[in-house]
Amino acid sequence: MRQTFDETTDPSFGAKHLPLVRAAMAEQGLDGFLVPHEDEHQNEYLPAANDRLGWLTGFTGSAGAGVVLTDRAAVFADGRYTVQVRAQVDAGQFEILDLVDGGVPAYLERLPRGAVIGYDARLHSPDALATLKTAAAKAGASLRPVDRNPVDTAWGEARPAQPAAPVVAHEDRYAGESSAAKRARIGEAIARAGAEACLLTAPSSIAWLFNVRGGDVIRSPLPLAQAIVAANGTAMLFLDPAKVTNALPAWLGDDVTLMSPDELPQALEGMKGVRVLVDPAQSSAWYFDRLALVGATVVRGMDPCALPRAAKNPVEIEGSRQAHIRDGAALVRFLHWVDTVAQVELPDERQVVEALERFREATGALQDLSFDTIAGVGPNAALPHYKPVTRTIRRMKPGSLLLVDGGGQYLDGTTDVTRTMAIGEPSADQRRMFTLVLKGHIAMATVRFPAGTTGHQLDALARLPMWMAGLDYDHGTGHGVGSYLGVHEGPQRIAKLVNTQPLLTGMILSNEPGYYREGHWGIRIETLQVVTPPEDVPGGERPMHGFEQLTFAPLDRRLIDVDLLTPGERAYVDAYHAETLAKVGPLLDDEVRSWLEGQCSPL
Amino acid sequence: MRQTFDETTDPSFGAKHLPLVRAAMAEQGLDGFLVPHEDEHQNEYLPAANDRLGWLTGFTGSAGAGVVLTDRAAVFADGRYTVQVRAQVDAGQFEILDLVDGGVPAYLERLPRGAVIGYDARLHSPDALATLKTAAAKAGASLRPVDRNPVDTAWGEARPAQPAAPVVAHEDRYAGESSAAKRARIGEAIARAGAEACLLTAPSSIAWLFNVRGGDVIRSPLPLAQAIVAANGTAMLFLDPAKVTNALPAWLGDDVTLMSPDELPQALEGMKGVRVLVDPAQSSAWYFDRLALVGATVVRGMDPCALPRAAKNPVEIEGSRQAHIRDGAALVRFLHWVDTVAQVELPDERQVVEALERFREATGALQDLSFDTIAGVGPNAALPHYKPVTRTIRRMKPGSLLLVDGGGQYLDGTTDVTRTMAIGEPSADQRRMFTLVLKGHIAMATVRFPAGTTGHQLDALARLPMWMAGLDYDHGTGHGVGSYLGVHEGPQRIAKLVNTQPLLTGMILSNEPGYYREGHWGIRIETLQVVTPPEDVPGGERPMHGFEQLTFAPLDRRLIDVDLLTPGERAYVDAYHAETLAKVGPLLDDEVRSWLEGQCSPL
Repeated sequence: MRQTFDETTDPSFGAKHLPLVRAAMAEQGLDGFLVPHEDEHQNEYLPAANDRLGWLTGFTGSAGAGVVLTDRAAVFADGRYTVQVRAQVDAGQFEILDLVDGGVPAYLERLPRGAVIGYDARLHSPDALATLKTAAAKAGASLRPVDRNPVDTAWGEARPAQPAAPVVAHEDRYAGESSAAKRARIGEAIARAGAEACLLTAPSSIAWLFNVRGGDVIRSPLPLAQAIVAANGTAMLFLDPAKVTNALPAWLGDDVTLMSPDELPQALEGMKGVRVLVDPAQSSAWYFDRLALVGATVVRGMDPCALPRAAKNPVEIEGSRQAHIRDGAALVRFLHWVDTVAQVELPDERQVVEALERFREATGALQDLSFDTIAGVGPNAALPHYKPVTRTIRRMKPGSLLLVDGGGQYLDGTTDVTRTMAIGEPSADQRRMFTLVLKGHIAMATVRFPAGTTGHQLDALARLPMWMAGLDYDHGTGHGVGSYLGVHEGPQRIAKLVNTQPLLTGMILSNEPGYYREGHWGIRIETLQVVTPPEDVPGGERPMHGFEQLTFAPLDRRLIDVDLLTPGERAYVDAYHAETLAKVGPLLDDEVRSWLEGQCSPL
Repeated sequence: MRQTFDETTDPSFGAKHLPLVRAAMAEQGLDGFLVPHEDEHQNEYLPAANDRLGWLTGFTGSAGAGVVLTDRAAVFADGRYTVQVRAQVDAGQFEILDLVDGGVPAYLERLPRGAVIGYDARLHSPDALATLKTAAAKAGASLRPVDRNPVDTAWGEARPAQPAAPVVAHEDRYAGESSAAKRARIGEAIARAGAEACLLTAPSSIAWLFNVRGGDVIRSPLPLAQAIVAANGTAMLFLDPAKVTNALPAWLGDDVTLMSPDELPQALEGMKGVRVLVDPAQSSAWYFDRLALVGATVVRGMDPCALPRAAKNPVEIEGSRQAHIRDGAALVRFLHWVDTVAQVELPDERQVVEALERFREATGALQDLSFDTIAGVGPNAALPHYKPVTRTIRRMKPGSLLLVDGGGQYLDGTTDVTRTMAIGEPSADQRRMFTLVLKGHIAMATVRFPAGTTGHQLDALARLPMWMAGLDYDHGTGHGVGSYLGVHEGPQRIAKLVNTQPLLTGMILSNEPGYYREGHWGIRIETLQVVTPPEDVPGGERPMHGFEQLTFAPLDRRLIDVDLLTPGERAYVDAYHAETLAKVGPLLDDEVRSWLEGQCSPL
């Protein structure tokens, strides 16, 4: 099994590790030290060697921060992790504070006057660091960059090795465009931005640009690396030699020079007088400091790979369609199992996760899960970011709902799908809420919108049926998804928060409204959908974008209250189910296909 | 008649006035001069004496800019004014450029190296000025503040006098809160912002805070003035003595010191060492420069009056309801006239404007129009920002649509309403488009939304029926409206553009989706609506805001294609019409009321 249910940290970490970090701080004359969740690559997933916040505090959420002072310490988590952070962190060692409301800056504003707080410039974006410096200055304190990270010193021998998974070719039949062609147009973009070269530090940009994939972090096929791309399309790729497979140099070609990460500082020194494009949202302050020091001119701008990566080409879109049909067949087998075996045997969340993983594995094409499967029964499903661990696992029981959110990494695409199923007979209330969520989901699936529209403009469409009923959900409606890359990919997003990136043709986004009744049950319906090109609408005047559904798997029809649907919504569900049967049915054996036919018959 | 149809400028202005400005520039050794549309008060409407851009170029749009160089000049206007600017400005004198796409900064980036361009710091916000300075610096040119504005010098004796309309009390029965109470809580807000005093230069903030109204600009009862408010609630009000009525000092009370605007520089000098709150979106760079010069500490922040002014109190809301019913009766008399007399006599746009003004005047309560009435027939209605002038006036003809957008200023409230009416028999296409606009309007009128929701999140709800049909409109969906103040009032707004101000209980907003078929006809449906407090929804869990309709006037039922409405939308129209009849009917004579009964019968 790929997924485990063990916890890698425990609340004893704080008491064990805080004194070690304080000792290392004292050696450097520091009154404090900042411990962000982010690592050197500003990436969502961290290798174990870089989960400094987890090692220090026990907290393993996907966003957070810590501050260690000589006499106290704090850990910061956002609203998604309120429950988890209290379970994982020793509140006797760490004050537990809100990451968003005030956050680290407010904490630094209350530092003692004259305090000197260390930070590791490799772990902070320049913008975040500027905010922290301003906050510390308000208190009459200051921040000081360190060469040796006191957490790394304290961690010492116990720290895992840096990952060194082999980096392999991602073939053009999946990527849809050769690396040479990509580098040529990225080179043009670099010149358009007024620069002569670009520093790339985002692993997903490097994987996309060079058409390679790695395995340095879990759940995303990413190589941890850096690159310098020149405006003429040539590049230096800084990659641990241990990751370089025999075939790699030939795959990269003569215009890409493979170098060791040790050579990066020297390469940066060679950029004196060069105009270098760097993305302050992707690259840490360390790079900005170094480039300034060697006399390069930094051009701040968006990573030029971000939009080409986000807006998939026709080969990637067709790959995603195929990956989703394959994944859909695995999911239908799983849903059939839930509707037959599981309704009788009432397995627990672990067994549910393992069953789904087995069905995905049986495709023979699964490279990895795209994230740890969420399987939540009853109250666990009411936690939108729940992940089952041994301590929390619940068993199905009649009258409860099972929420399963998971996905697969395939060479031709990344999937992410949520289905919610009734265990036994659903209540009228469960059916009402499921149907309201479904109405919002359908609104987002069927919307047309003009060029230039952003995700924050569309978000309310999925919420409207909930709002009209006095309900809402406390997470975004949709995130970008990579092409055999990260399951969370920017810059596009559909959420309440402002996001000024227009949705472009080929961008893949999730559509996942939900409803969560705390302490009882939760509902989420999620498919992935791709932005279609602007098309004329009969009787209209302006071409409109829309979404094409990628995910095909039936909805639990027992949870749909048909009386709450408009005729158009009902027709949508019937058409979606018919398409599901047509696309996924041929991959199934008779028993499961026959079950699917029943699930996909008109409401 | 209050409204005129004459044009106050003509395209000969450029050739006449440019040489005079260039001569005044030369006297000061300037190679160029910036002429923004904005005046000293950064206000939407300008007194004639401050319409420097109109005098120089002939262009009278509500936003724009000019740049005069020694050998060339340019005028900048946005997409709303593309047609108007070409009609008003001599293209032989001025290059006509886009205000938004590149705008003045792009023009300054192409200045000759070493050029010295003058600007009047009283006319630019500090943020806008910083952008312009950066642009000029890119070209190796520079901006220099001037003491004497070359346009004012050139204008000379011909320049109208500054307005000096009497400033009068706005009684508590309209304002709903005494000025003393307002000043006490604004004083608290000043202290919360970390300041000891606040400089106010927005006329609407001064009118609101001191419960006074003036008449220095057309269509808004605003006094041009400045004020300094201390954190203890006392204030200095800088007001031309010519505007001070006998009753005013007593109305203002002992805690408000009336001073002449001549005394303002000296008062600013007295602020050495004081922390002064100033809004960079409202107050010009001149104030920031002066405060820095005298050694005050500027605290940049939102005008503390902006949100209390925008979120109306119960007295203001009740006043608005009454103003709207009164205005609605005038509007119903007008609509009756359009549906009877005008259908036969086929008047022109001027006669339509005058008829509506007569009906509003007959209420006996009209203080002013809230803006020049838009009456557009046929292709004129396809220009969303059309205002009829002698040169453009069209006559009604059967088969055309009449779009009328107007409003009144009453002591108890400001109105703004648009209705579109068929002249003769409407076409199927006109009915389809009207009904699509109506569906969007209804979506916005009936939406519920949680606290924290902003206008850019709701905007798409009004557009969705258009988008689904391959249509859209190129203006915002809703603007804030004052309480016997400006008909356009911030900071809230419902539009595609990002606006991070949450909609708060008591904010009044317009709801005005439209459709414009260039060269043919236009449709807009507009009511004002007020944000209601968060209320529980039966079966829901979270209290939700909503909108209460303020405007009551029938929709042209001949333009509604009932087959395109959902049952809910149809019920909304019937209920809205029933409420219109119940509220406005009692104010009408038998003939008009009988007509209204027909208009308001169920669809």
